Amino acid sequence: MNAEIISIGSEHLLGEILNTDAPYLCQRLTALGIEVEREITIGDDEKDIASSLEEALRRVKMVITIGGLGPTPDDITKKVIAKAAEEQLVLNEEILSEIEGKFKEERKSMPSDNIKQAFLPKDSHPLKNRIGIAPGFILETRNRIIVALPGPYNELVPMFEEKVIPYLEERFKVREVIKSLILRTTGLSESKVAEKLKDIMKKSKNPQISLLAHENIVDIRLTAKAGNEKIGEKLNEGMGKKITKRLGNYIFGTGKQALEEVIGYFLYMRKKTIAVAESCTGGLISHRLTNVSGSSDYFLGSVVAYSNRMKRDRLGVKKTTLEKYGAVSEKVAGEMAKGVKRVARSDFGLGITGIAGPTGATKDKPIGLVYIALAHKDKVEIREFKFRGERGVIKAKAANAALDMVRRHLLK
Amino acid sequence: MNAEIISIGSEHLLGEILNTDAPYLCQRLTALGIEVEREITIGDDEKDIASSLEEALRRVKMVITIGGLGPTPDDITKKVIAKAAEEQLVLNEEILSEIEGKFKEERKSMPSDNIKQAFLPKDSHPLKNRIGIAPGFILETRNRIIVALPGPYNELVPMFEEKVIPYLEERFKVREVIKSLILRTTGLSESKVAEKLKDIMKKSKNPQISLLAHENIVDIRLTAKAGNEKIGEKLNEGMGKKITKRLGNYIFGTGKQALEEVIGYFLYMRKKTIAVAESCTGGLISHRLTNVSGSSDYFLGSVVAYSNRMKRDRLGVKKTTLEKYGAVSEKVAGEMAKGVKRVARSDFGLGITGIAGPTGATKDKPIGLVYIALAHKDKVEIREFKFRGERGVIKAKAANAALDMVRRHLLK
Repeated sequence: MNAEIISIGSEHLLGEILNTDAPYLCQRLTALGIEVEREITIGDDEKDIASSLEEALRRVKMVITIGGLGPTPDDITKKVIAKAAEEQLVLNEEILSEIEGKFKEERKSMPSDNIKQAFLPKDSHPLKNRIGIAPGFILETRNRIIVALPGPYNELVPMFEEKVIPYLEERFKVREVIKSLILRTTGLSESKVAEKLKDIMKKSKNPQISLLAHENIVDIRLTAKAGNEKIGEKLNEGMGKKITKRLGNYIFGTGKQALEEVIGYFLYMRKKTIAVAESCTGGLISHRLTNVSGSSDYFLGSVVAYSNRMKRDRLGVKKTTLEKYGAVSEKVAGEMAKGVKRVARSDFGLGITGIAGPTGATKDKPIGLVYIALAHKDKVEIREFKFRGERGVIKAKAANAALDMVRRHLLK
Repeated sequence: MNAEIISIGSEHLLGEILNTDAPYLCQRLTALGIEVEREITIGDDEKDIASSLEEALRRVKMVITIGGLGPTPDDITKKVIAKAAEEQLVLNEEILSEIEGKFKEERKSMPSDNIKQAFLPKDSHPLKNRIGIAPGFILETRNRIIVALPGPYNELVPMFEEKVIPYLEERFKVREVIKSLILRTTGLSESKVAEKLKDIMKKSKNPQISLLAHENIVDIRLTAKAGNEKIGEKLNEGMGKKITKRLGNYIFGTGKQALEEVIGYFLYMRKKTIAVAESCTGGLISHRLTNVSGSSDYFLGSVVAYSNRMKRDRLGVKKTTLEKYGAVSEKVAGEMAKGVKRVARSDFGLGITGIAGPTGATKDKPIGLVYIALAHKDKVEIREFKFRGERGVIKAKAANAALDMVRRHLLK
């Protein structure tokens, strides 16, 4: 079973609204084992709607239209669908009295334009609208299924969940399910991950494996087709183990997990605490750590020491170290980490100093040079990084590398 | 001039990503007087991409493809476009050395797969990627223009703004110009802004006025059509003055200006410095302040005091105050603001304490209760807020309110 989605409405093509209907339908259809092959957005133009519908009916078993079911003259979805199916639009008395009832409930009289909304293609299955006015419908024609849904997200979702899914499940006893598993990696570029998994990705047909790069994170998505959920999950788990063996600690989590959640979990389980001394990241590491609910259990606080005075007074970085090595140096990162660990009385101290740019670079110290130090007990581990990008990107990459350093330490 | 947009990538059809590229392009193309007639999303399937491209080239003058320019085998956009144009893919030496340079800059070796990204259709106009790796290109063929852009939003936008728009303007002298001016407000909901501007918005046809709500910010967008840029700008300026008179200090800037940039400008001009003591915002205020280039001139640093010990030891909040009033209180916010001002030796001290949730609420102190204090000279101004939403939303709203308090103080 495959499907196409046609979103109708000139407003979408002006780009002022984010279309959330289509992603929602894509997700739900995928979960039902129905593959969405194409998604089209067109304006309120009869010829365009008709040609898109015809093309889609030629290509796939199910076509879902979104929008164009309102009472105004530019709402022509029903007319076009009826024409394609060679059916008349006929008045549905039950729907009409329901629409009239809705106006009565708000003590308003129904404008005559709304009568139009009670006309549906002959032999179609009406879909009542629990939230708004416009009804949808399902029409089976030419060995195809056409589902017409209203545009507003809060009307479309309940209609699809409560009316369309039961109809589809009843009508086509679903045989195949699609399960997906996402493995999250950090520290490798998309092409590096692809290189490492080249043979596996090529060979594996079920689950299929694809990559998706976000800022600092590359997701490995496994998509298995199976007769039931359990078998699908097993297929993904088997492949997941194989990939995890290959990539090791580059994989930090699954699904939508964030690095700071993984760290938080480790710290919480081991009853350890952390404090942070930030310079170039300017508070971003603390912000990320405190995005996690319950982070107050293990995150004690941080000092964002932008000025050298703050580094000295609040963290105890030595004046001589600052003068001899400069604020962006291994030594200062180390003293920051040890300093914040001491002042916060935490188990871990994370120190970070660098040049986020665009100014502040010197001959020896380019933009993107970052030192990260992690103090634990009486040891301190320091690493040097060189990141590329604009100020915001360097901040984000540096914060991510620092959090990843903590995670890797906690894995030891 | 008309256009179609083709988004390429199977991940979109699984519905797990919101496509923000297409709405952005729709907006920008509309502003340039280019009508977007259709927007299509398809998977990484060669036949589907080829047929969509062929159909689009038959219908419109310009086709923009998004995505599929990466180094992995499922990135096939270039191959399909080259085939449609009956051109070869040829190695662009300049692009290759640029890609190599990017890897060198991060002290990494370039995986061999990335060489593929330096191949572009013969006679195409290359579009360098300032942020990421994948270059785009413009190809004129069969009396049509094909523009191929990378998928990541932060790569696509600068490429389109800096490379594609100048190319189009140069190539097709535009007759009517569309100028827009955005006035940014904070502190009012979208419906409140609409209420205050109802009559103005209804009456004004040129410029047209529309609202767009972001997190904490409502933009008022003026769009003027005119024979040349100057007239368009004048129309917008006239209306802008009228609206500013009505909304006063709720308007904090124009265009894409952020609140922290406005504050930074004021502080820099007056040679004043600021330091921050954060509790419930967890570093977010500092992160926002340091997103601005040159913020080290006026931002001295901050203390994120999650634990009470940090509040006492690092900020000098009195033990008795904490015990008597609790960590989330007017008094503690005030002592935090004064404390950080003292320890950082800054002109302004900003203190913030509250309950971000989902835990930590008591009978008297609900989730979303936040106190913000601003210390300046020997005065301290304290305000109480109650925000609604999830943890992340409350952090964001609280940080915004704190920054806005600083801005309003600086306006006095």
